Formats: sequence, C-alpha cells, structure tokens
Amino acid sequence: MVRVGVVGATGVTGQEFIAALSDHPRLQVTHLAASARSAGKRYRDALRQPSGAIAWYGDRPLDPRVGELEVEEADAFDASQVDLVFSCVDAAPARELEPAYAEHAPVISTASAYRMESDVPLLIPGVNMDHVALLRRQQERGWKGFIAPNPNCTTVGLAITLAPLYRAFGIRHVHMVSMQAISGAGRSPGVIGLDILDNIVPFIPKEEDKVAVETQKVLGTLEGDTVRPASFPVSSTCTRVPVIEGHTEAVHVQLERPADEDAIRAAWRELGASFCAAGYPSAPPALIHVHDDPFRPQVRMDRELGGGMTTAVGRLRRDPTVDNGWKYVLVSHNTKMGAAKGCILLAEHLLAEGIIAA
Amino acid sequence: MVRVGVVGATGVTGQEFIAALSDHPRLQVTHLAASARSAGKRYRDALRQPSGAIAWYGDRPLDPRVGELEVEEADAFDASQVDLVFSCVDAAPARELEPAYAEHAPVISTASAYRMESDVPLLIPGVNMDHVALLRRQQERGWKGFIAPNPNCTTVGLAITLAPLYRAFGIRHVHMVSMQAISGAGRSPGVIGLDILDNIVPFIPKEEDKVAVETQKVLGTLEGDTVRPASFPVSSTCTRVPVIEGHTEAVHVQLERPADEDAIRAAWRELGASFCAAGYPSAPPALIHVHDDPFRPQVRMDRELGGGMTTAVGRLRRDPTVDNGWKYVLVSHNTKMGAAKGCILLAEHLLAEGIIAA
Amino acid sequence: MVRVGVVGATGVTGQEFIAALSDHPRLQVTHLAASARSAGKRYRDALRQPSGAIAWYGDRPLDPRVGELEVEEADAFDASQVDLVFSCVDAAPARELEPAYAEHAPVISTASAYRMESDVPLLIPGVNMDHVALLRRQQERGWKGFIAPNPNCTTVGLAITLAPLYRAFGIRHVHMVSMQAISGAGRSPGVIGLDILDNIVPFIPKEEDKVAVETQKVLGTLEGDTVRPASFPVSSTCTRVPVIEGHTEAVHVQLERPADEDAIRAAWRELGASFCAAGYPSAPPALIHVHDDPFRPQVRMDRELGGGMTTAVGRLRRDPTVDNGWKYVLVSHNTKMGAAKGCILLAEHLLAEGIIAA
Amino acid sequence: MVRVGVVGATGVTGQEFIAALSDHPRLQVTHLAASARSAGKRYRDALRQPSGAIAWYGDRPLDPRVGELEVEEADAFDASQVDLVFSCVDAAPARELEPAYAEHAPVISTASAYRMESDVPLLIPGVNMDHVALLRRQQERGWKGFIAPNPNCTTVGLAITLAPLYRAFGIRHVHMVSMQAISGAGRSPGVIGLDILDNIVPFIPKEEDKVAVETQKVLGTLEGDTVRPASFPVSSTCTRVPVIEGHTEAVHVQLERPADEDAIRAAWRELGASFCAAGYPSAPPALIHVHDDPFRPQVRMDRELGGGMTTAVGRLRRDPTVDNGWKYVLVSHNTKMGAAKGCILLAEHLLAEGIIAA
Repeated sequence: MVRVGVVGATGVTGQEFIAALSDHPRLQVTHLAASARSAGKRYRDALRQPSGAIAWYGDRPLDPRVGELEVEEADAFDASQVDLVFSCVDAAPARELEPAYAEHAPVISTASAYRMESDVPLLIPGVNMDHVALLRRQQERGWKGFIAPNPNCTTVGLAITLAPLYRAFGIRHVHMVSMQAISGAGRSPGVIGLDILDNIVPFIPKEEDKVAVETQKVLGTLEGDTVRPASFPVSSTCTRVPVIEGHTEAVHVQLERPADEDAIRAAWRELGASFCAAGYPSAPPALIHVHDDPFRPQVRMDRELGGGMTTAVGRLRRDPTVDNGWKYVLVSHNTKMGAAKGCILLAEHLLAEGIIAA
Repeated sequence: MVRVGVVGATGVTGQEFIAALSDHPRLQVTHLAASARSAGKRYRDALRQPSGAIAWYGDRPLDPRVGELEVEEADAFDASQVDLVFSCVDAAPARELEPAYAEHAPVISTASAYRMESDVPLLIPGVNMDHVALLRRQQERGWKGFIAPNPNCTTVGLAITLAPLYRAFGIRHVHMVSMQAISGAGRSPGVIGLDILDNIVPFIPKEEDKVAVETQKVLGTLEGDTVRPASFPVSSTCTRVPVIEGHTEAVHVQLERPADEDAIRAAWRELGASFCAAGYPSAPPALIHVHDDPFRPQVRMDRELGGGMTTAVGRLRRDPTVDNGWKYVLVSHNTKMGAAKGCILLAEHLLAEGIIAA
Repeated sequence: MVRVGVVGATGVTGQEFIAALSDHPRLQVTHLAASARSAGKRYRDALRQPSGAIAWYGDRPLDPRVGELEVEEADAFDASQVDLVFSCVDAAPARELEPAYAEHAPVISTASAYRMESDVPLLIPGVNMDHVALLRRQQERGWKGFIAPNPNCTTVGLAITLAPLYRAFGIRHVHMVSMQAISGAGRSPGVIGLDILDNIVPFIPKEEDKVAVETQKVLGTLEGDTVRPASFPVSSTCTRVPVIEGHTEAVHVQLERPADEDAIRAAWRELGASFCAAGYPSAPPALIHVHDDPFRPQVRMDRELGGGMTTAVGRLRRDPTVDNGWKYVLVSHNTKMGAAKGCILLAEHLLAEGIIAA
Repeated sequence: MVRVGVVGATGVTGQEFIAALSDHPRLQVTHLAASARSAGKRYRDALRQPSGAIAWYGDRPLDPRVGELEVEEADAFDASQVDLVFSCVDAAPARELEPAYAEHAPVISTASAYRMESDVPLLIPGVNMDHVALLRRQQERGWKGFIAPNPNCTTVGLAITLAPLYRAFGIRHVHMVSMQAISGAGRSPGVIGLDILDNIVPFIPKEEDKVAVETQKVLGTLEGDTVRPASFPVSSTCTRVPVIEGHTEAVHVQLERPADEDAIRAAWRELGASFCAAGYPSAPPALIHVHDDPFRPQVRMDRELGGGMTTAVGRLRRDPTVDNGWKYVLVSHNTKMGAAKGCILLAEHLLAEGIIAA
C-alpha cells in the first residue's frame, strides 16, 4: 500500500479525500495534519465542534481507523513518513508548506499557490497527461518529490469540455457564466445560509481570473520543458447559487474552424477514452457524457455521473450571432472530479507510470 | 375611477395584478375573467383547490371586495363594461381573446401573442415611451381600443440596462445568461419542487428566442409608423434556479464606441429620470440602481428595490477579451417590473397621456 | 428469475421500483403498466413530457432494457403473465385493480386501498413478519395471489422505532410531529416549488389519520387469523418541508413501564437483527442506527444509511414532564425503506419463505 | 425624540433594530456600540467584510445617517448619553454590560442573561404588561434604569398563543415541536449553507430549556413584587429548517377545562385588543390572526402579517387522544415580534406609561 498523508485534513476537502480513500485498493491514509488548533487530537475529536457535533461532510461514514489517527501539526509534519501527500490547505499556508513537503515526497494539491509556476503542470486526469513530464523539472529545486496542483474546480469542467474542441477545431474566444455550488466554499464559515437560501451571490473573489489563466495553462502545449499557454481568452462571470454540490456552467465558445454537431459530440465522447480504459480505480467510464434531452444536464441529477468523475454536457447548439459560435451547458462535480477524487485519480495514474511509488 | 377587468385572474400573474391594484388611487378592479372551470364562481372560491386550500400568491392579502367578485368566462367577457383590460392568459388563448377585447377597450397584456406584430409596440415604462405612437395604427384594425403587450420578464431587465448603453455608445453584441426565479413559471403546475430544490434547470422553452427579438424591438427606432428593430444580436442561455422571485442576469456586452465606467454609470442613473419624476403611483424613484459593492446585486436583497420596479445592477467591469467589452450583473423583479406592476405603470402613463380614459 | 410487473410505472414510486430492481439478482421487471395515457408506448417514451424532457427521477440511470418495454394499460393488465406485481397506483384505482391482479398473482402495494382490511397484514420487513400468516386468509377470497400493502411512508419510520419500545416497555401514548420530504408527493404535480421554497406547509391531507391507525395495526398482535391493533393512541401533526428525500419525525412517547437509556438503545439495536442477517439483497446491516451526536440524525446526511433502509434515531432523552416519558428524533427514507425498496425487501423475504415463487 | 443607543449594533439583531427604527416617530438611534473589533469605525465601515461586501441584512436599506455614526466600544459605552439602550449582545457579555448601562438608563434586551432573575420581568407586549410593575424593584439595585429582556424568539409565539388559553381554560401540559428559521442564529457564522440546504438540524443548544422556563415566567402571576411562574410543563423539540425568517411551531396542548373551537378562536382574537388599539407605531392590528384554511399558516406567506408582529395560527383541532387535548400550528416572525420589533413595541408602551422618557 502507498502511505498517504492528508494535510488540511479537517476541512471539507480534506474530508472528501478521507472519504474517497476509505476503501481504496492502493492508497492508505496513514497520516493526517492540520492547523495547530487540531494538532495532537484524535482526528475524530478534532472534528468535534464546541457544541459537541462532529462536523463530518464526507459522503460516506468516517472510516473508524482514520478517526483514531492523531492529527499532526501541518507546520511540523515530516513528509518523509509517507509516499504521497494530498494537500488541501489554503493558498497562503500552502505557499510555505508544500515546498517543505516536496523535498521529501510527492505532493498533489488542491491549493492555488503553485499553479502558475513555470515548472509546475496543471493536470486534469485524462486531459493533459503529457504535461506530467514537467514534474521532472522540479528536481532542479533539489526536491525528492514534486508539487502537482489540480486546477480550480470551476476550471476543471470548463477545460475538460473545451479540450476536445480546441484540439479538433481551435478556439478563438470563450464566454462562460458559472453557477457554483456552496460546498466549494468550505465550512469556516463557507457560505452562510442567510446569504444563499433563495438567493444568488454574483461574485466569488479571484475566481474569474483563475478560470482564465488556468484554462489556458491546462490546454497549453508542452514545448521542451515549458508549457506554452493556449492563446484564446476566457471571459467569465462566476456566481454562487443555492446548490449543495456540483457546478453548472453556461459556455459560449467561438471556434477557429467550422464544426458540426456530430463532430463536436464525437470529439467529446472520445476524450480520454484510453485513459478511462486503463482501469484506474477512480476513473469513470467516460470523462464526458453528452445529453440529448434539452433539459439536461441538471446538477442534482447529473453530478454523481461516473462516481462524480464524469462531466455532463448538454444543450449543444449553434450560436448564430457569432462565426463558428456554439453554446452548451455543463455540470461538473466540484469536490469529486473538481477536487479530491480528481487528485486521487491523478495519483493512480502517476503510480501506474512509476512517478509515485510505495 | 378607471374600471379594470383582469382576464386570467386566477393565475399567479392575475393575482399579482389584483394584489398590486388593491389600494390603487385610479385603477379599480371591477371585473374578473378566467377559464370555464372558474366561471360563475366567486373569485375567492375559484382560488380554492380540491384540498380546501386557497391558492393565493399575492404579496398582500386578497382584497375582500375583489374576493367577492364573480368570475366571468374569458371567452364571453364583454370588454365594453370596463375602461381597461389587463390580460395575462397564455399565448394561445390570448391570440383569440385579446382582439375581441381590443375592439371595445384598451388591452395591456403579459401574453406573447401580439408582441411581434408590426403595429404593436413592445413597451417598457420609461424606456421607449415614444413607441406608444404605434398604438394609433391599431385603429386601422377597426378597434376602439388596442393591444399593448409588455415584453417577456427576462427581456425587461436586459432591455432596461441596455437602453442607456445603446443610446450613448451603440451596441455590437450581447451575451447573456439568466438565472430565473420559479414564480415566472406560474402554478399549473409551474416548476415542481422535486425539479428545482438543490438543482438548476438549464432550459426554458422559447425563452432565448423571445429575449433576442424582443430586446431588439424594445430598443428599436420609431420610423413613421413602424419600429425598426435594433440590429445587434443577443445570444443567451436561460436557466431556472431555486429562487422564488427575481431574475438574475449575467450580461457581457460589446459596445460600438469606447466608454468608461463613470459614463456608463451616469447613463444608467439618468435612464427614465423625468418619467420617474412624473409622480405615477407605481413608479420607482429610479429605473436603475447601481451597486458599488461587488457582491451585489443579490436577488433576495435587491428584488424589492423601488417596490420591485427598480432594476439593480452591479459588478460593472471591462471585458478585456473583447474591444469595448463590458460585463455586469442585473437583478429584475420578474413579476413586478417584469409583469403585473410594469403593466400597471404603463397604464398610469397612458392615463396621464389621455390614451386610456375613465 | 422472478417475473415482476410494475403497475403505476410512470410515477415517481414506479420509477423507484424500476431503479431499485435494475440489477436485482432474483427479481426482473418484465411487464410495466400505467394509465391509458401511457399505454402502448415504450416506457422511455411514456416518460417523455410535452417539452421533450424525460421525467426520470430514479437515483440511478434508467435500465435501457426496461426503457424499451411497452407499457400496458393498468385496467387491462393480465397479472397471470408475472410471478409478482408491485402496485403503486393511487388509492382509488388500486381499489379496483389490485383484487383483479391478486386473483392471479401476489401483489405488493404502496397504495392505501386495502391497508385496513381485516385479512390484509400491514408488513414492515423485519418488524412484524409474523403477520405474514394473515396472507393465507385471503385465499378465502378465491385468489391465487394476495394483496400485501406496505404502510404509509410516515408510519414506517415511526413504527420501526416504536416496535422495540412497545415490546420491551409497553407504550401508553405517542405525540409525533413530522417534517416530510417533497418526494413523497410525487410529480403530478406533487408539491410545486412556489409552495415549498423557504416555506413549510402544515397540513398533508389524511396523513395524520393514516399514521394513527396504521401504526396500531403494524404493532398489533396476531391472534388466530386476526391482528388485534395495539391500543396506544398516536397523535400527530404532519408537515411538508423543503427537503428532497427523507422524513424527519420528532417523537414524544410515554412508555408503560420504566426504562433507561441503555435499555432503549439496546432494544433499538437488536430490532430485526436476525432478519438483517438472513442475507436478503436489499436488507441493511441494521434496521435502526442510534446516533450519540445530539445534532443527528440530519436528513441529508442520514437518509442513505444502509442504502436508505436503515432508520436513524438520535436525541434520545427523558421527557421529565411525563411519567416514563421519552423523546427522540428519527430520519427515515420515505421512498426507499418507506416505499419501493421496502416492498422489494418484503418480496425477498416472501420468496425465501416460499410464499412467492418464480 | 428619545435618544437610543444600540449595543451589539453590527450583528443581525442589531441591524434589525436599526432598520426598524429608520423612520420611527419617537425613537432615534444616536449611538451605536459593538465589540472592540468594530469600535472607532463608521458603522457603514464596521459592516464591511474583508471581501469588500457590506454585510447588511436589514429588510430596508441602511439609513445613511446611521451609516455615518461612529461605533463605540461596548465595554466603554456611557449609557448616560442616551434615554434608552437596546442591547442585543450575546449572553456572556450581556451579563457584564447590561447592569453597567442600567445604572444610567433603561435597557431593553434580547439577551438571555437576566431573563430568569427574580426582579426582572419577561415581557411580551400586549400579553403580560402587568409584569412591568416588577421593573420598579430593580431600583433596589441602585439603578436609575432597569433591564427588561424579551423572551427567546421561540417562546414568544408559543406564549402569545398559550396566554389566552391559559387564562380562559387553564393548561395542564404542552408538547411543542419547533421548525425554526436560520436568521435566528445570526451570521458569525450562524447556520452555514452546507448544514441547512435540503436538511434539518434536530438540535438547538439550550433552546428547549429556555422555552420551558420562559413560557412559565411570561404566563406567571404577579404576586406582590414577584412573578409566580405558571405551573404547567412545556416539553419541546426544537429544530432548524431551511427557512430564512419565521418560526413554525406545532403545538399539542392539554387544557385544564373543556373548551370548544369557537371559544378558543374568540380567546385568541381578543388577546391584546385594547393594547393594539392604543396606537403604538409598531403595534399590529391584532396580536393573533386565526386561519380557517387548513393549509395555513405557512411561514413564507404569513411571517409578515401585521408587519411581522402578528402571530398566525391555524389547524386548530381537538386531540382526541388526550382529555381536553387540542392541537394547532403557529407562525411567528422570530426577528420582528420575536426580537427587535418586539423590543421596540415594548419601548413604545413604556414611553406611553412614562417609564421611559426623553
């Protein structure tokens, strides 16, 4: 078994990692770390709130074995004890902590701190696996491991659906409006109920900038030891809606070259087919599912497709107001493919490639 | 007092008319009409469901006087008994009924049946009041009255916010994604709870087409006895979200000519200033309210601005990916300014102009 | 394989049956029936709404094989073609249809039509399996099969949690307030969004009466070929809340004899232990799960416990205002244990007992 | 004008006070106080969050004059500058702060700190105004002012509806289950969205104890300079539901003496009639509104009755399982009658009585 440490273990994303790994055939959570407030406690107790409630948000019960693990302090966590670190702390602490861990072990991270560094790839499993090569360049930093962040959860669904279009037809411009679930904001305090019931919040700080630059990097071209970003601009408005899990995105895309509906659907269906066929435990049957029903995708019905790892698209139609314009709607599970389970699937691939080892 | 008949009185929009008119200084509901199923009953009883519940959705209690009125059958309703008809039946019956009423009396309608006819203006109070002149052309149909429909509720907020931009800077292209409240779908059955709790429905039949052509007509130019539609295209994706009242729209607009933020804000603030100053009972202090706080507009907090008659905008920012590109978010009350109260405000204006009379 | 017909197949409960049976090891859906409106169509097409949407609410995708089955008219359905009928039509049609089916085949039903007949047991799997003996009496009606209804979904969770208390300590009186999910109301139109978002509906017609008499019958004593109902009264208020799935019930119970917390917890934990150990495909690990955390059970977190077949209880505490008074809160999945999957588990038991046969 | 200081001004309840007083004819907010974090800032700036958003939850826009007031530190606030203090801090700081203020000025408080002291009345306007006499006893503490807390918001609706029953028929026992809105939990962090969307939380710490003892005290009898609590027990289960504003309570009450439906309705309708007729600016037309429609009260439709100051009741019916048993459902606005506006109405009464003076 691969020994796994989860840093940021008490947050919502940390819990998603722990839930998703509770019966994993290769990856075993052996170490947990979090802030000083939780350090020294059993994990189960660290989740206990002043009121006595256990703040567990995983979609399956907490693995009792993990519940008994002692939480270490993230600042003092010795990554040489594990074969792999999943890091899901905030960007500011990640800036300090992740390099210290990467000296000793591979770090797969949901934090944004290192996403835009030139020797750091921004990996979406099955989409841009050639960028994995970039990880080697990090050895120049003197590290035994590396830092491999996943993109922002809103970027994940967008980049997955744009990748086949970009490769087949080129992309000139993207407009996107997101309707994002509250789970992405975590729980300290995350989105308070008073702000989201019967309401929409039209702003998520920094999100629109991240979506623009991260999408370009994910779809960029590996040239030597550098990724040249895709050059098409992504203009977005990101909003928060009263939905628990799953991001919905309305995409208006202008392609470089003419396409037709069948060709677009075929390109979507073929994305990552061989990757999905490789038998990774967390891989879905397909990266993209295309709906014909114009009332789909619907986030509550579609977010769990492929175990939360398949992006659902629908409402594909021409945008006659723009040359080679197309519109569609996607639903992507923000805490599964868009965060914890996406990182786990990446780890499974890196294991198979020998880039991570037990 | 102006004698008012409400046709389609038992629906959600009919109820909004009745609620909004319950203490109106000039307009008095004297006649109600609905389908054969309700005809012959007291209004109060017509609202009673098989379960015994009174299906009243107005935002103030049902006026007891109106509750006692007998509901007439819409097919047989004699419009010569009233000075003004508010019609809020579906498009198909409106096609038949509204001309029959217009022979005898002015008809202000929320139905889409006649919106695109060449002698029918599409009026938003304070926005395109010069189009009122078109009503005269309907006398050629041999009518004593006329049909004056309001635009679709999603068009209303969009056209209000685009109008000042179009006049000041020209518009080349509009992308819009709407997040629409469930009240717009009515109650028979409207949106069922199972379809909208913790969910988003990405399709509203016909809505995107309506928004495109209606926006162009509202912002069109009166030339002789015709409205020449504005020529810029409007590409949209319209969705339904778990919000009770109020539509949110994320707008990406490309202007013809350079603008700056102050000029845009000024144009918005000045829209309809003299109209609002005219003292109409249902007019808000301003047609548009501009928020500086990037987290606004929020639909639950902003939909009742100006008694539901003010459109709230915010998040104004350049879209650097497009020449003269700008982005903003708006909130508009779909059943107040976007439907019943918007029609009432129009009636108040037409009364003042002598086009409707007691 | 046991050939199964689902009558009422297009409704929400019918869909739950079909979803739950999609990979069942013994029960195979071979026939579907519904009202005349759907008859003659492929099932998939019968679910298509005028808008083009497929109204499928199952929690897993529709089995393509079942999607291709032709829907028969319920009135004309020949039950001799199947080994078992699951009926989930409304009470009025059930009154006519179920006896016609029972002439030829066993009928397990979610309808209330026959629940209170003296030769009809009201069965909750693992709770009152001795009442199965009553089914034999129905042969006096000249039937080859029988009618076995499950109780109302609100009764199911209540009776499961009261059963061990009743047997161990006796019960003098029950007060219960339910907070019921909208899924129980189905989709034609069910609960409309406008009536339930940010709202509570304090009345569900007939529900409180059903809960009282059905709970007494489930917990009644089999005496010869009759069930003598339990004699304690159940007073309830049943409400509808903005929750998708899962009923929450706040129970105040007065026991006959003194109990203590440990004894109550033990009684709950032991309920149905041997039944659950029998290896039925749809049986949960335990019928009742007891929470220590005072903030549980929470419906969204607990409704899927044991595949939706385990009732979660918590907040057990004395009610010092009443002799032998106790209070607790329960969560029960209304469309799984409380409806379709509960009926399927019953079928699995009756198969094992030889009362149903392929 | 009466000079008013609001302490705890930045919280949700503080905001409700400020919103409700924005155009009050007698009471003018002249001073604001809050914790050290806000002290020294303009009120408007104190509401600004790190993100730039203004956290204002009042149901009307923030009065610009009040927005410019400087926030003082609660610990150092000199109450002699005002004629009246509204205190809405948490219980722990209230314990220290309120006596310091009461030395100089009357304090009307939403905090629980002093509710159960023997010289402190627990006042609900129009319900137990004879208890006002108790305030005089506080002069023995050497105070110029006094502390007058309102009861817990859940107690308010319950006590209002029980009061007329208690006086007319006596009460032997009360069972109550509450379904409480999230606004009562405030915003730091209050109830997080992830905990309440599509969910119910079955526990609110300390709430059930407060409801029991506070209801008894409100309905107690003034004997000399003491209130003898009502002796009937109140057993409750208090839950949190996905509703923004307004508490719903399902009440099962056993009366001492026989009643009939008409007598109960009459008792309810007469409660506080003369109080409501006295012309206080915040008084509703009636303290209780009785619904005949069995589907009412519904919290979203009924919470704003009488400006949020009228308690709506419905579903009155006998509980045949208990001697003289009755059941009903109530809706009470937790932050209006149940908190800020209830305190303001009390202030209006005390002003009229000369117990508060400008």
